[in-house]
Amino acid sequence: MNNHSVGIVQRQTFTFAEKEPMRLDSGEMLGPVTLAYETYGRLNAERSNAILICHALSGDSHVAGYYSAEDQSPGWWDECVGPGKAFDTERYFVICSNVIGGCQGSTGPGTINPQTGDPYGLRFPVITIGDMVRAQRHLIDHLGIERLLAVAGGSMGGMQVLQWAASYPERVRAALPIATTARHSPMLIAFGEVGRQAVYADPNWQGGDYYAGPRPAAGLAVARMVGHITYLSEQSMHHKFGRRLQARQRFGYDFGADFAVEGYLRHKGSRFTERFDANSYLYVTKAMDYFDLANGNGSLAAAFSQSKGIAYLVVSFTSDWLYPPYHSKELVSALTAAGADVTYCNLESTWGHDAFLLEVETMTGLVSNFLERVEKTVR
Amino acid sequence: MNNHSVGIVQRQTFTFAEKEPMRLDSGEMLGPVTLAYETYGRLNAERSNAILICHALSGDSHVAGYYSAEDQSPGWWDECVGPGKAFDTERYFVICSNVIGGCQGSTGPGTINPQTGDPYGLRFPVITIGDMVRAQRHLIDHLGIERLLAVAGGSMGGMQVLQWAASYPERVRAALPIATTARHSPMLIAFGEVGRQAVYADPNWQGGDYYAGPRPAAGLAVARMVGHITYLSEQSMHHKFGRRLQARQRFGYDFGADFAVEGYLRHKGSRFTERFDANSYLYVTKAMDYFDLANGNGSLAAAFSQSKGIAYLVVSFTSDWLYPPYHSKELVSALTAAGADVTYCNLESTWGHDAFLLEVETMTGLVSNFLERVEKTVR
Repeated sequence: MNNHSVGIVQRQTFTFAEKEPMRLDSGEMLGPVTLAYETYGRLNAERSNAILICHALSGDSHVAGYYSAEDQSPGWWDECVGPGKAFDTERYFVICSNVIGGCQGSTGPGTINPQTGDPYGLRFPVITIGDMVRAQRHLIDHLGIERLLAVAGGSMGGMQVLQWAASYPERVRAALPIATTARHSPMLIAFGEVGRQAVYADPNWQGGDYYAGPRPAAGLAVARMVGHITYLSEQSMHHKFGRRLQARQRFGYDFGADFAVEGYLRHKGSRFTERFDANSYLYVTKAMDYFDLANGNGSLAAAFSQSKGIAYLVVSFTSDWLYPPYHSKELVSALTAAGADVTYCNLESTWGHDAFLLEVETMTGLVSNFLERVEKTVR
Repeated sequence: MNNHSVGIVQRQTFTFAEKEPMRLDSGEMLGPVTLAYETYGRLNAERSNAILICHALSGDSHVAGYYSAEDQSPGWWDECVGPGKAFDTERYFVICSNVIGGCQGSTGPGTINPQTGDPYGLRFPVITIGDMVRAQRHLIDHLGIERLLAVAGGSMGGMQVLQWAASYPERVRAALPIATTARHSPMLIAFGEVGRQAVYADPNWQGGDYYAGPRPAAGLAVARMVGHITYLSEQSMHHKFGRRLQARQRFGYDFGADFAVEGYLRHKGSRFTERFDANSYLYVTKAMDYFDLANGNGSLAAAFSQSKGIAYLVVSFTSDWLYPPYHSKELVSALTAAGADVTYCNLESTWGHDAFLLEVETMTGLVSNFLERVEKTVR
């Protein structure tokens, strides 16, 4: 832990929809709903300095800090959230909650269904990014925040940012969608489906009812390995691994891990299964695949028709082939057509999609200055 | 069947290394070795018009024509091999053989090991592209062909082409490496490893000893689905599928195939398992990952030091992100440095890696004129 950390933090929970269930985009009802969340910094007296950070597919509410003095690894965006960082916790009150459908404290397929006493499994309703954001809005109400200074996030976090702006424009002063898209492309859907098929193919999956037995770890690991390839770029893979061998002087002529990149994927895949629930992987990827803000709104610009009061900072990365810059450019056109205040930065980076987690130095200046400008218009 | 088809063809076999086994790059010995092959057109009296076509990962010896009058689907490159086509069978004697390690008639992990009476399974030695080509050379000897007019192939077929030129330069007059590379990149290795992990994760795989029981079809299907994503491009996926729904008017809010692209992948994955052996998938992808002509030769140019007598037609496709054009450009530099006669075409195409199977019209002109030019220098 260093001086720029938010220090020791605690996961909190908020439960709602206990009497009256929440209606989902599918028409299904869900309740009670619990959200796990964390906060950093202090809400000011005017309640005007709150920033909601939304996490990506494999993230959770633990965006920064440590759970104990012995904790070795900080939250997933610790380099961007803390005193003097991009999201400066000396200045802002930062909130992050685990999405519904997830597996880190929020209601999801692994939660016990109070009506049956068993885990939901595949009886959990299919959710959307809209549903995730609807649940977050309950949390923001609960925290007594009328208008968020900003909503920010990368990848699936960025989809939630856009959904906030589209669904609750009056509740958002600024939006920072990073390395993301307003509609999942067929290639993204294809990768989503392959990950799900890898889970289905694991006989331990048992149609989703595996909570009393062994987990479908092998299938989930394969899904995660595919994911990890897509988060990198050809160039970053050359840089990180090249054709370097792993703990071998020469080819093994067997099916062990010859190459460093193979060892990396095996390690990443297996570590993921220790912390993530396979059913949540299905639900969260499905929510991403359904995401298309133009759908139901006629056009993307129509989705943002109430965006005149929102300032946008759209960020993409040149080597991100999963959410390529042209997705952000289409978004910028739609926002501009909707009369929004839009700043767009297509940052040079060789890190592929992972850049949104790694290009900290560049992002810090961009984000903190953008937030400062927005803040001035609020006060 | 149309007038431009080679018509009804037959698969033949050639067996060698019966007394003395063939030494592999690993140092292991393999024998007897059988190659399944097909030929089209006629070998001329001078035996100077033979063209060897090498197949890709999932291909086989059946490059053109039909096996019977009822056969609905022709060979895998039928549009390029036949009377008046790129590889004109009125003019050339075309040969195609299934690689060793494969599962369409050539010796591979599914073959009965004559020493034990059981299928090899994972006791089959790990093979390389060099070994595949070494076996093909035995076939070319057997056919009495001293010098091939050309060796051609796309993807893994192109690797064999380059290996032929590097290993047996005196036996090749022209080489056509298409949509390929001289060394597998870390991203290619990563995708290879993920496919293998999907197979390992299938409990029916049984460490490779599944031939008496159910096949690891689910794992192999996942591997194939990942492959299919990489063969397309973002643009071709938009064109082919977009976000079109599959046999549904609206989202199903379940885990069925909502989108056309999901249905396509499921179909391709499942069909593949009917015709391909999972262990062969492991061996052939591993051979590709090991492929690196610079390795052991000091540099790529050194690998082609005997290339002065060979004419090359190197072809890449702009939207191929699996074997991006820069791989071909590196190859062209190395060949040029080695003093070879090199023609390079980086063709505009939106079809991604699949372009080598689809851009028939453009390729026909390129290939047939190139072959005509080469032929003249031989006569």
